[in-house]
Amino acid sequence: MEPNNATSMHSHCVDITMEVHQVVPPPYKSTLQKFKARLKETFFPDDPLRQFQGQSLNRKLILGAQYVFPILQWGPNYTLKLFKSDFVSGLTIASLAIPQGISYAKLANLPPIVGLYSSFVPPLVYAVLGSSRDLAVGPVSIASLVMGSMLRQEVSPTLDPLLFLQLAFTSTFFAGIFQASLGILRLGFIIDFLSKAILIGFMAGAAIIVSLQQLKSLLGITHFTNQMGLIPVMSSVFHNIHEWSWQTILMGICFLVLLLLARQVSIRKPKLFWVSAGAPLVSVIISTLLVFAIKGQKHGISVIGKLQQGINPPSLNMLRFHGTYLGLVMKTGLITGILSLTEGIAVGRTFAALRNYKVDGNKEMIAIGFMNVVGSSTSCYVTTGAFSRSAVNNNAGAKTAVSNIVMSVTVMVTLLFLMPLFQYTPNVVLGAIIVTAVIGLIDIPAAIHIWRIDKFDFIVMLVAFFGVIFISVQLGLAIAVGLSTFKILLQITRPKTVMLGKIPGTDIYRNLDQYKEAERIPGFLILSIEAPINFANITYLNERTLRWIEEEDNIKEHSNLRYIILEMSAVSAIDTSGISFFRELKSTLEKKGVELVLVNPLGEVIEKLKKADEDNDFIRTDNLFLTVGEAVASLSSTMKSQSSTMTEGAQTIVAHY
Amino acid sequence: MEPNNATSMHSHCVDITMEVHQVVPPPYKSTLQKFKARLKETFFPDDPLRQFQGQSLNRKLILGAQYVFPILQWGPNYTLKLFKSDFVSGLTIASLAIPQGISYAKLANLPPIVGLYSSFVPPLVYAVLGSSRDLAVGPVSIASLVMGSMLRQEVSPTLDPLLFLQLAFTSTFFAGIFQASLGILRLGFIIDFLSKAILIGFMAGAAIIVSLQQLKSLLGITHFTNQMGLIPVMSSVFHNIHEWSWQTILMGICFLVLLLLARQVSIRKPKLFWVSAGAPLVSVIISTLLVFAIKGQKHGISVIGKLQQGINPPSLNMLRFHGTYLGLVMKTGLITGILSLTEGIAVGRTFAALRNYKVDGNKEMIAIGFMNVVGSSTSCYVTTGAFSRSAVNNNAGAKTAVSNIVMSVTVMVTLLFLMPLFQYTPNVVLGAIIVTAVIGLIDIPAAIHIWRIDKFDFIVMLVAFFGVIFISVQLGLAIAVGLSTFKILLQITRPKTVMLGKIPGTDIYRNLDQYKEAERIPGFLILSIEAPINFANITYLNERTLRWIEEEDNIKEHSNLRYIILEMSAVSAIDTSGISFFRELKSTLEKKGVELVLVNPLGEVIEKLKKADEDNDFIRTDNLFLTVGEAVASLSSTMKSQSSTMTEGAQTIVAHY
Repeated sequence: MEPNNATSMHSHCVDITMEVHQVVPPPYKSTLQKFKARLKETFFPDDPLRQFQGQSLNRKLILGAQYVFPILQWGPNYTLKLFKSDFVSGLTIASLAIPQGISYAKLANLPPIVGLYSSFVPPLVYAVLGSSRDLAVGPVSIASLVMGSMLRQEVSPTLDPLLFLQLAFTSTFFAGIFQASLGILRLGFIIDFLSKAILIGFMAGAAIIVSLQQLKSLLGITHFTNQMGLIPVMSSVFHNIHEWSWQTILMGICFLVLLLLARQVSIRKPKLFWVSAGAPLVSVIISTLLVFAIKGQKHGISVIGKLQQGINPPSLNMLRFHGTYLGLVMKTGLITGILSLTEGIAVGRTFAALRNYKVDGNKEMIAIGFMNVVGSSTSCYVTTGAFSRSAVNNNAGAKTAVSNIVMSVTVMVTLLFLMPLFQYTPNVVLGAIIVTAVIGLIDIPAAIHIWRIDKFDFIVMLVAFFGVIFISVQLGLAIAVGLSTFKILLQITRPKTVMLGKIPGTDIYRNLDQYKEAERIPGFLILSIEAPINFANITYLNERTLRWIEEEDNIKEHSNLRYIILEMSAVSAIDTSGISFFRELKSTLEKKGVELVLVNPLGEVIEKLKKADEDNDFIRTDNLFLTVGEAVASLSSTMKSQSSTMTEGAQTIVAHY
Repeated sequence: MEPNNATSMHSHCVDITMEVHQVVPPPYKSTLQKFKARLKETFFPDDPLRQFQGQSLNRKLILGAQYVFPILQWGPNYTLKLFKSDFVSGLTIASLAIPQGISYAKLANLPPIVGLYSSFVPPLVYAVLGSSRDLAVGPVSIASLVMGSMLRQEVSPTLDPLLFLQLAFTSTFFAGIFQASLGILRLGFIIDFLSKAILIGFMAGAAIIVSLQQLKSLLGITHFTNQMGLIPVMSSVFHNIHEWSWQTILMGICFLVLLLLARQVSIRKPKLFWVSAGAPLVSVIISTLLVFAIKGQKHGISVIGKLQQGINPPSLNMLRFHGTYLGLVMKTGLITGILSLTEGIAVGRTFAALRNYKVDGNKEMIAIGFMNVVGSSTSCYVTTGAFSRSAVNNNAGAKTAVSNIVMSVTVMVTLLFLMPLFQYTPNVVLGAIIVTAVIGLIDIPAAIHIWRIDKFDFIVMLVAFFGVIFISVQLGLAIAVGLSTFKILLQITRPKTVMLGKIPGTDIYRNLDQYKEAERIPGFLILSIEAPINFANITYLNERTLRWIEEEDNIKEHSNLRYIILEMSAVSAIDTSGISFFRELKSTLEKKGVELVLVNPLGEVIEKLKKADEDNDFIRTDNLFLTVGEAVASLSSTMKSQSSTMTEGAQTIVAHY
């Protein structure tokens, strides 16, 4: 049925009388009750304890255990069939995890082995605590980059590697603590302030920063800047042209092309996901053999070098909670924590939506946080749910977190027996792997989409992007977040006020600009305020309303303004300043001989207005209506009865009935 | 007429057919047009150039001049009659200004004479530029206190008085620059963030801090703490009991009682305003004579001492824009500037509203700012429209800013000839004057009012109060502002979503909690979202909506949920994240076999939804309606035609027609 053409139904004759419905305040609630309700909505909007209601104690205990350890939910009915697919996907992500782990560790200026450590313990922890079935856990490029750059500002990883490592672990510890407490304190909504627009801009910027860092290994430069920004890196690249090694460059280009091709294949044909998934490991193997064969390191191709064997050594003794660097590690922990958390949660939500199950944000935060706390005491640096890895995991048909366990076992085997093989792996290939991985973070279509829909969001995105490239990762982010928060505040300080008109033949009143057919009603000025009224906007609202009135007075035919109707359906809240706004407005209007009428004030608003009313009545039942239609109708009938000359406005109304 | 009982009008029979009106996007505007409109609403809501429209060039020039120098508006038609009342009020406030000036200067740890200087030049400047007729200009207690305390944290006024004076003048200069630029850049709304609640708490706190500082002179203590907080002051008071001088205390009590009595008299009988207005000068004269007679200073009563004669020396050469203290003076300027600005604007608005004329906030800021810039180069420290003084001014019948000129001339005469008389004025009396002045800032009834209307505002007020008393003036303020801003953000991150029901016998849908008679319609879940939808709240909205639905499913009789209607009249804005929210919600609902229906999306919202729709249609005309009534009606008719079993909901609807 096409709504615009009228569908006439069996219509019968009814005797309509103009009835006026009253605005009533909501049923009384004590301050404590309100406070409780508010608290619940703020911190427990998902109502996690719902499932416990009306269960036996025994059942409650089981549910509780399952709530804390999701593995107890799906573990019991885990089948061999599920394991098969988990096994395949586990091996696949392992083949990606090993080279990525080594590369990202280098990105964070940490020994390559730490990257592998971080792909061993954390996945096991997540498998027990995590509620996502697709998340593949491990170190990620952005968090690695940020941690490396922040720590490097105060400690040199080359001059004092031990201290640097200690600080990295301590930062990881704080990141974990911070993430877990966000979840426990139910403050998960804080990460919502990293809006989609910000993330797109930030990720693109970070991708470029990361790729720039790879120029060191891709060009085989030995003296490279410690800074991250576009300008310093570029200058250091072109001031060291004499260091460029053509062998390295050649090798780099070859593998870069190989990896990018593999990526394209998998993008074109999702069934061939394993091509891009396997490519990194393959290129590591090939390049290693190549270097070993041609004694590449003699031709200026730098290699990883010796890596000690064995699984993660305990690192609890390496956490430093004292001394000069405490501030630094806490700051680093906070920022890397929130960044990795955002990526982890976003990835988790994405795949949950894809496969139609729910992940509990706050629970995920606790899982990820705990994972990092454990990691920090087992020689791992900050880890989270990695986007690229999880995508591969999902494509490879992972069914449960068991794929994480398979991956971590594979990594363990590598750590125990296969480390010597990596001795001749050239750094240039690791660089190529990173570049290929992060290029996927640049999402042009999304940027265009944002431009089309919301220009301001686009600006925020650009700010994040250029901020990250030219200033610094954390500052760029901070500015972008500040800007988008400022926009929200601006919407409050400058709320929209629109003039409503009557849509002919109905009782519907709508925005005059939007609905051209809507018509003014002489003697009435009908305004709709579209924001909570509070200290931040009463001055503006006052000036704006007075301007509406003055503009009225200038129009001759409307000069006989009698009533101002404020449609308050959109005023969701009000504070003491808001109350005083109405009081002042009313007195100003009385001086002009205009009466103030309120329509449909919502629960909280009418409640407060009535409370404030006890001392001075500016809310009487005859200037308070439930709908604009009723207000206009009853007021114009009074106008009629009062004034001898009857306005057309009233006529139309009466005609309508 | 009583609205609740139905007023039956001439009702005639009409043949109603169920008509469905379409939601239309607003007429096309280019990004630039939108941007301009937004800019205007943000920075020129009062539309200051309105009066210039359609005037001759000549007239425009005159209007322009009058706009910059309000004195040109009222000057020409100034009469002797007006002058008489201005003269009286001018003298009255002068008698208050002289002792207050001396006292407040001491409060700011500045030489007393500076207080008099500051009551001479600034009033003249304001008389030319200011647009308020009642504002009496001069130094004020709070700004003096804050400036004194902030500067004293880094420089001792006793050890290095010259440097301290230079910093005070420089801070005043920056305060003026800051105030003026706020006005010029039309950023006046920034001071709105000091809400009424904050100011009440802050003023009360400041009053107590100021009074505590007076214990030094009231008890005659010589070794007094440099700090402001309650605890340090109290401890220093009781650690120096041996320094207390009974003569000083006795004198202090006498004059304190005298002044408080005078204040009471004027509060009881506003006609006797001159009693409290004159009291300070009277007590200064009496106490001075007394001390002179009994050689008080020999009995341990400390006096002001010699004051040099003559009017303001130029102080341009004393402004320091370099060196270590630049940061300090800028910070001090910023904070004292915003504080004095807030007081000035608030006072101006209050009396303007009282006498029904308008003051232009941004123009006032420019006037006050310029006043302070000039002041800083003529040995004045920060000044503004003082509340107590303006109240007296208004009571004394001031008609124009001429009263300020009269006051400043009187002060000039004092500076030129009467300074020696103040040599024997005891500090204890000045202390008593300050205490009496600031006690008026503690507004208990207002606090109670706030408690009754809005508990959160009350908490903010307490935070400001205790923050000022126990931490520091600027930090206490900052925390309070942060808290109230956080509340606004919380309203956005946790928007209200309420379930609507049909008010029987009407087409009106309202909140089910608020309107008990309203009834659900089976098969429908009607939700109203009461905030802009953006990155900060989509996660919450998603969870909340899903919870609404799950709760539905648990109720057996509603389990046949077919449609979710989102009433969007209160969604004033949306961003790209908001768009994605709708897309995700729609797909989730489709999985549950529920259809998403939108009602009355406002201009901006429908516009963006349609834009986003170009690639994937989730907005079709048959799930987009102008009112809930029409949506329910037409949807239940389709339901009827589809499903063989017809729900009662549809019946009621049909019955209604």
